[in-house]
Amino acid sequence: MKNITILGAGLVGSLLATLLARRGNRVQVIEKRPDLRVKSWHDGRSINLAMSERGWQAMRLVGVEEAVKQFAIPMHGRMIHDPHGKLAFQPYGDEGQCIYSVSRSLLNQTLITEAARHGVQFLFEHKCTAIDLQTNVLEIEAPIQPPPKGEERPHPSPPQGEGEKSPLLRRGLGEAGGPDLLFGSDGAFSSVRLAMMKRPRFDYSQDYIDHGYKELTIPATPGGDWAIEPNALHIWPRGHFMLIALPNPDKTFTCTLFFPWSGSPSFDEIQTPAQLTDFFAKTFPDILPLMPNLADEYFRNPTSALLTVRCYPWTYQDKAALIGDAAHAIVPFFGQGMNCGFEDCTVLDGIIGQHPEGDWQAILRAYEQARKPNADAIAELALQNFVEMRDKVADPKFLLRKKIDAHLFHQHPDRWVPLYTLISFTATPYAEALAIGKRQDAILDTIMALPDIENCWETMDYEPYISGQRSEVRGQNV
Amino acid sequence: MKNITILGAGLVGSLLATLLARRGNRVQVIEKRPDLRVKSWHDGRSINLAMSERGWQAMRLVGVEEAVKQFAIPMHGRMIHDPHGKLAFQPYGDEGQCIYSVSRSLLNQTLITEAARHGVQFLFEHKCTAIDLQTNVLEIEAPIQPPPKGEERPHPSPPQGEGEKSPLLRRGLGEAGGPDLLFGSDGAFSSVRLAMMKRPRFDYSQDYIDHGYKELTIPATPGGDWAIEPNALHIWPRGHFMLIALPNPDKTFTCTLFFPWSGSPSFDEIQTPAQLTDFFAKTFPDILPLMPNLADEYFRNPTSALLTVRCYPWTYQDKAALIGDAAHAIVPFFGQGMNCGFEDCTVLDGIIGQHPEGDWQAILRAYEQARKPNADAIAELALQNFVEMRDKVADPKFLLRKKIDAHLFHQHPDRWVPLYTLISFTATPYAEALAIGKRQDAILDTIMALPDIENCWETMDYEPYISGQRSEVRGQNV
Repeated sequence: MKNITILGAGLVGSLLATLLARRGNRVQVIEKRPDLRVKSWHDGRSINLAMSERGWQAMRLVGVEEAVKQFAIPMHGRMIHDPHGKLAFQPYGDEGQCIYSVSRSLLNQTLITEAARHGVQFLFEHKCTAIDLQTNVLEIEAPIQPPPKGEERPHPSPPQGEGEKSPLLRRGLGEAGGPDLLFGSDGAFSSVRLAMMKRPRFDYSQDYIDHGYKELTIPATPGGDWAIEPNALHIWPRGHFMLIALPNPDKTFTCTLFFPWSGSPSFDEIQTPAQLTDFFAKTFPDILPLMPNLADEYFRNPTSALLTVRCYPWTYQDKAALIGDAAHAIVPFFGQGMNCGFEDCTVLDGIIGQHPEGDWQAILRAYEQARKPNADAIAELALQNFVEMRDKVADPKFLLRKKIDAHLFHQHPDRWVPLYTLISFTATPYAEALAIGKRQDAILDTIMALPDIENCWETMDYEPYISGQRSEVRGQNV
Repeated sequence: MKNITILGAGLVGSLLATLLARRGNRVQVIEKRPDLRVKSWHDGRSINLAMSERGWQAMRLVGVEEAVKQFAIPMHGRMIHDPHGKLAFQPYGDEGQCIYSVSRSLLNQTLITEAARHGVQFLFEHKCTAIDLQTNVLEIEAPIQPPPKGEERPHPSPPQGEGEKSPLLRRGLGEAGGPDLLFGSDGAFSSVRLAMMKRPRFDYSQDYIDHGYKELTIPATPGGDWAIEPNALHIWPRGHFMLIALPNPDKTFTCTLFFPWSGSPSFDEIQTPAQLTDFFAKTFPDILPLMPNLADEYFRNPTSALLTVRCYPWTYQDKAALIGDAAHAIVPFFGQGMNCGFEDCTVLDGIIGQHPEGDWQAILRAYEQARKPNADAIAELALQNFVEMRDKVADPKFLLRKKIDAHLFHQHPDRWVPLYTLISFTATPYAEALAIGKRQDAILDTIMALPDIENCWETMDYEPYISGQRSEVRGQNV
């Protein structure tokens, strides 16, 4: 049994807490925000997320699949809105294959509740202010206000009063009373990662894209119904930018505008309600009437940045490890950020199972080696998919290509599986999926260049193009 | 007139101080190490460096060329030592073209002395402990010990005594008494850059290579002479690793072993004096007898890491800027780290000259836009040149290629200039040089693939291969 401290009670941290507790460890989670079960977080993170197969695998592993299904809304495909308001539906996969819109808050609450049920101790409103991996010391600022009633009090009551300093807890990693092992599931701006950066030979990069995002809402209709089709992920592709919408259980939609920071058009350029309305009327004419609070929301809500974080190593001896966004923040355009973080947890859990001797140095090394190439692959795919979503989905040539892709899958499921299917509906390791996708893309390039392909694609013989191909789909990779 | 604070009195910081003081600004330099004119720095940085044309341009600009020439040792080419101790000399350029081995310490002293002569105030043994660009506050820890006699004391004498805390100076950027403008010339692990990283949308990467380095010495002969040819840069290329040696004015050579951290052979593998001697006897037989203190030095001296740092932006409003390694640390294999940092200064000085109105926002923006593509280019070239130095220079095919490269230069100097010449003997912007180098490389690939090229290269007609080429060498780029 290990004393394990997890920094961050977000989606990945809470899931990880349950898995580690179930393996017989004493687990404590430190979270600077309040208890989500009591008080909601307004931290600028997205309202809802797309859950696909890798996410569901993790939910099944901890037994919350049915609980999460209660508030998950199936989305069977993309609903493309053209500049004239004309709709076109592009299914994600076969009949019954879909991704799900889930509320970040409800999902996180479910995972915290499950972890607490397994004896995990949560310290909310505790902020980690310093981590020194070399001297093995964590500094944690306890709240000045007493924690919510009923919450465990692991340290003496701090003195009350305005202007008083928060008490500092110091815990040695591996020391008596301190954790043996620290997990950083503290997101894209991880402080555990910052501590690792101070160690020699830590590779690191953070790369921002030229687009930011802003969340907006489509409320339910006055009659209390969905204003647009609920079982789809809506996209308004506009070349260099796009708007998307995902359904919520209260029959609203959360829209996200992915938009350049500067240039024309851009966040910089739109400064007044009149400019905003004018821009929406011209660019998204069908949605403007559905957003009565557009200007209020647009000028009140934050504009957030989008970045890719890559680093290595992810672990430090047998003492610390990064997981989820802390190890590999990615842009959201393949809907895989959460799914990838959850897969980190299921893979790690599998590796722990393969090391009954409890050699954590070996466990952590195997974990980072298993996950790093896959994290790099999904980072690359997520960046690529932005171009697909905002631009290509509106192109008839691209739609034909997608149809041929699906056609080959139906004709030869043992030899051809579309990339989107590999990523969203299987657990084929991302790096393998990326390689298969590139191979298939080259073949599709050749096929698309055939004369008269528009007319012959349903009847032609694809054998010469796909001979030698084999699809190696994995239901599970752990 | 601006109040300008420069963090770091290294080579770039001291040069920059002179240039900014000469433009009429009040300049203060904060340096955590002691006054180099009084006490030497043992900070693990290389003992000597290769100065080439871009470096000399900067020296001429501040009028210290002659002073630096006093201790600069010309190196006319590479002296290749094969595994049997056989020598081969490869000239860098034409007759008279050479790079120079200069002592980091003497050069830095020269630049500090020059800056002090222009009224620059140096605060040695002052450590910057916090920088907040948004709130514009610098925190500087003053020394507990009083600074050396004769040094200016800009703040009240701190209390003396063991265990007492160093006094903290707080200076607001742009506030009365604080600097208007902050330059970070504080190296690869810059704290100004760290402050910029906390700002939104700052792109950053640090990438370590798999090799570390260790410095060793070839002493002068018992008769007081150079042990090997002084006017060359010596290389012992060994495929995946190499040893190099540069001459010093005291007739010693500083050798640097660039060697993998792990694997075979590697720093990890060599753990005892016997293993070390055995390895050197097998690998560098000609140098072993010249290094009587090899084992002492090898096991006493640190092994240092090598990294590339890339980031952007380099500036913050009209308030702060990165320069030199702080903006773009590169690996040392093109001998351009210092030269590039000096060129940053000459280019910035030129831009300041073009803005007599003193619009620092415009100056800093123009500076980062001018330098960023060139810093990226030399970073790439430096990484590539490691393979050339440690491996290719020992390959007869490569030597023939170099001869053809030089031959084309002599035949058509208006249309063909070797990449090494562009980088080391001109001020052609690095990014242009990189592009020209790639173009010429493709042509050389074609030429090298010609049948019987070994025998016909001196007499053949190159016109069909180089038609349309033009060399655009710049003597100066500012």
